[in-house]
Amino acid sequence: MSIDTLLIIGCGLIGSSIARAAKAHGQAKTVYVADQSASACASIERLGFADGVSENAPEFYASKADLIILCVPPGRMGEVAEQIIPVMKTGTILSDVGSVKGDVIRQIAPYLRDDIHFIPAHPIAGTEYSGPEAGFAELFQDRWCVLTPVEGSDEKAVDALKAFWTGIGSDVAIMDPKRHDIVLATTSHVPHLIAYTLVGTAVDMETVTNNEVVKFSAGGFRDFTRIAASDPVMWRDVFLSNREATLEVVDRFIEDLSALKRAIRWEDGDALLEHFAKTRDIRKKIVDAGQDSAAPNFGRDD
Amino acid sequence: MSIDTLLIIGCGLIGSSIARAAKAHGQAKTVYVADQSASACASIERLGFADGVSENAPEFYASKADLIILCVPPGRMGEVAEQIIPVMKTGTILSDVGSVKGDVIRQIAPYLRDDIHFIPAHPIAGTEYSGPEAGFAELFQDRWCVLTPVEGSDEKAVDALKAFWTGIGSDVAIMDPKRHDIVLATTSHVPHLIAYTLVGTAVDMETVTNNEVVKFSAGGFRDFTRIAASDPVMWRDVFLSNREATLEVVDRFIEDLSALKRAIRWEDGDALLEHFAKTRDIRKKIVDAGQDSAAPNFGRDD
Repeated sequence: MSIDTLLIIGCGLIGSSIARAAKAHGQAKTVYVADQSASACASIERLGFADGVSENAPEFYASKADLIILCVPPGRMGEVAEQIIPVMKTGTILSDVGSVKGDVIRQIAPYLRDDIHFIPAHPIAGTEYSGPEAGFAELFQDRWCVLTPVEGSDEKAVDALKAFWTGIGSDVAIMDPKRHDIVLATTSHVPHLIAYTLVGTAVDMETVTNNEVVKFSAGGFRDFTRIAASDPVMWRDVFLSNREATLEVVDRFIEDLSALKRAIRWEDGDALLEHFAKTRDIRKKIVDAGQDSAAPNFGRDD
Repeated sequence: MSIDTLLIIGCGLIGSSIARAAKAHGQAKTVYVADQSASACASIERLGFADGVSENAPEFYASKADLIILCVPPGRMGEVAEQIIPVMKTGTILSDVGSVKGDVIRQIAPYLRDDIHFIPAHPIAGTEYSGPEAGFAELFQDRWCVLTPVEGSDEKAVDALKAFWTGIGSDVAIMDPKRHDIVLATTSHVPHLIAYTLVGTAVDMETVTNNEVVKFSAGGFRDFTRIAASDPVMWRDVFLSNREATLEVVDRFIEDLSALKRAIRWEDGDALLEHFAKTRDIRKKIVDAGQDSAAPNFGRDD
């Protein structure tokens, strides 16, 4: 099963990075993209990484593609699937990059056909920037991409999609969709929610001016602002579509924060120290696993 | 008022960076350091940035210095002040780098003499690494250093300390200690507490293995682990010594997080979007102010 023609629908940071990476690594001969934004399409044409760009009619290219990857915000997956699935060739692989898998599967399932292969996926990669200009071919290098095959997924199709992601630099993991959603709630969704919250709290404090927040942000706050600069529409959809898992992890976080608050209030230094001492180890493991830079401050001050 | 001889007491990340920077920028002719850790003293001698190192007797050098900067953890400021103030020369400036100013002032006040100048300070700079090996001369470049002069602080002494910090690359701000403590609770202390909490929550989740947390950390979580790798003893002291302001900001944060939780539970997408859209602006201001890198992902993936 070889991928000659790739179609990316929704060509922002992730979609445009896949398109660029597929070209750079020779993982597709022809790369088409579709995006409903006229200005995004104009940028894509200027950037020149696609062999064809469609603003209004993804179904035109959908009938030609061997692999179609939906890179629209999580909330739009169902409507796009409804639009393109009827025209897809027999044997085409349909995938996506949604940060939540259970909900995407629920949205797309009603439109599926027996003669196409639906394999949900989620590359764990990104930056705080959005849009086709923000993409780059190396975004997925040494980052994990999780595939969550559904019941009845064809093994050859899963292997072909796995080869595609491996071919553009990713490590590939196979997971159950439900497990994916609780794991990612922990390592991605709740961290984003907390960053968005803290940045909002600081901006709204009456006792601290925004000018002070900006000036003295190097004390830790600036790290949170990077994450909180991520695409608001995408993240709204993520939280709404992974509601249960997000709320479960947030509740655990609030419990733990309350315990530390109590330790501060009652001046229980030993409890604080015990908690703080155990978090260094996981940082070391992340750096050792090649998932973050060992340079102080991520190397940004060099 | 010129600074010929500088004494750094407590020679970890910050202390050793000041010592290195003072030498590199010619802001002191002679730089002595004292540290109660034998292994730290051995490292410092090997690194060779100090003109003299004392393990057990900071008072030996204290009698020679024009400027003494206490860089010990916030909880130890009082005991060190008690030890060295009696031997200080008339006219010497005593300063510190504590992350909390009100409590440091309370600790040191009982030991002060009329003929020395006590000027509390706090450089808003650091990395996630600790110890004398982790320091570097450029740490304070373009970062703010806050001076919080107390009642009766001599203007010439304040100017001399300001010139010292400016001389090693900092911008200097003058603030009231109480205001400093609420501002820094917002931009530094609570961000650290939240990062420590979230990393602990993820490590403790029964439904997610630590191996999964490490593998899929690039979704946002890894950013928090950097901050949560900071010196546990120092941060314990910070929270205990800035208790009121920390708890005030944490409570505001929990209120805001509860509001977002409620919006998720009731699927109020508009409320989420409104909140998320307002946080991008502060990121832009921080980057424009030169307080963070504009490179995607802090440039760490380059």
